[in-house]
Amino acid sequence: MGLQYEEHFTIPFDMTDVKQEIIISQFISHCLGISGRQSASIGRSDLDVFEQYGLVWVVTDYELLIFRLPSYNETVRIVTEPISYNKFFCYRKFYVYDEAGNLLIDILSYFVLIHFQDRKVVPVPDDLIAPYQSEKVKKIQRSPRYQVLEDPESKDYRIRYFDIDMNGHVNNSKYLEWMYDALEYDFLLAHRPSHIQLKYVKEVSPGGIISSKVELDNLTSQHEIWSDGHIHAQAIIQWEKRDDR
Amino acid sequence: MGLQYEEHFTIPFDMTDVKQEIIISQFISHCLGISGRQSASIGRSDLDVFEQYGLVWVVTDYELLIFRLPSYNETVRIVTEPISYNKFFCYRKFYVYDEAGNLLIDILSYFVLIHFQDRKVVPVPDDLIAPYQSEKVKKIQRSPRYQVLEDPESKDYRIRYFDIDMNGHVNNSKYLEWMYDALEYDFLLAHRPSHIQLKYVKEVSPGGIISSKVELDNLTSQHEIWSDGHIHAQAIIQWEKRDDR
Repeated sequence: MGLQYEEHFTIPFDMTDVKQEIIISQFISHCLGISGRQSASIGRSDLDVFEQYGLVWVVTDYELLIFRLPSYNETVRIVTEPISYNKFFCYRKFYVYDEAGNLLIDILSYFVLIHFQDRKVVPVPDDLIAPYQSEKVKKIQRSPRYQVLEDPESKDYRIRYFDIDMNGHVNNSKYLEWMYDALEYDFLLAHRPSHIQLKYVKEVSPGGIISSKVELDNLTSQHEIWSDGHIHAQAIIQWEKRDDR
Repeated sequence: MGLQYEEHFTIPFDMTDVKQEIIISQFISHCLGISGRQSASIGRSDLDVFEQYGLVWVVTDYELLIFRLPSYNETVRIVTEPISYNKFFCYRKFYVYDEAGNLLIDILSYFVLIHFQDRKVVPVPDDLIAPYQSEKVKKIQRSPRYQVLEDPESKDYRIRYFDIDMNGHVNNSKYLEWMYDALEYDFLLAHRPSHIQLKYVKEVSPGGIISSKVELDNLTSQHEIWSDGHIHAQAIIQWEKRDDR
């Protein structure tokens, strides 16, 4: 168990899609902002970590269980908790509740610390992590085995200026948008995601083209983002048919 | 003079670009949310307007004067005021101030009311507009004469799933992103916008491709968004060379 922190949030128009539900990638970015504010409140802002340790936090994996997606103008309570860590990985949860207290989304995220200069992963310094009151564990969470796709559909996307964030690479939130977009519009209208596993493998630099590849088998889609001959991200999404359409 | 309303806002990570400054299109969407909250506070929410009048607000034009773009984590004060209206147009200002009280951005927006069903513009009902305490004026603000571009550069963009908002069309904020993206990455890094005039001509439907056309002449760029053989939006942007690069 770690130090909990929470905020309320009313879903704005520009964070919702054609179905009036949250755009998950943007919502995750908002959740990251909340964890950033928790860190700042205990003297571990990104700037502190950079100035005192020369390190930068990077998310490597997400796992989302989605029971219901919040809608436009709905107010949710977002609780975050840095639950545990081992030599290299820190695990943080986000729980999203509606006003009646129902759990809507459960997000598990994996963070690592990298050296700002050489981008190499470093062991988590004990004094850096201490204020979070997370449990030190031996166990490493296992992200799923992502199979390389054999016969995917593929769409190409030019990397846009606003895809790049202040770290000088494509913002993480864009990958999931490209993955969604590789599916058909009518499929997305008629289905909702119930379980998302997402792995970031490699940063994407400005300029050039990425390919978003997908294989849809019944209600499971498997995704890859390719750039310059390498896989940069992978995901597995479980879908449910919407009963309202 | 109309009824003023204000909110404070701390710029989140995901609303900033590679230069750590606000992404203007997303910031404008946030400002629209503020005007929506003012309207709701005086019994004129979008839902009220739809249920009581069968009408929907649509923005047709923006004019922005930009003195400095707010940065990541900066807290700004955003004041909005529905300043005046005539038979068809309502004019609303947004003023963005930094913590020292300096004006950073002055935004003038033009709104019209359309019938939800036939998408036709209707005269502004007096009782709908009354609570805003805006001045009724004869004068129509003149947006600039946009010249049709003769020899533009052009980039094509596939419309993405998340470009579509709950109105079933491309969200207004995407046009400005496509316009920016038509310029070169190095130009965008080395310049800042000081004056933006933007006109929405026609909604863009899901699916298909749009073309973002641009002519850059010294420090003025002129933009057009084309789809299906028609112009859907136009803009003129004045740029200044950044002295910090």
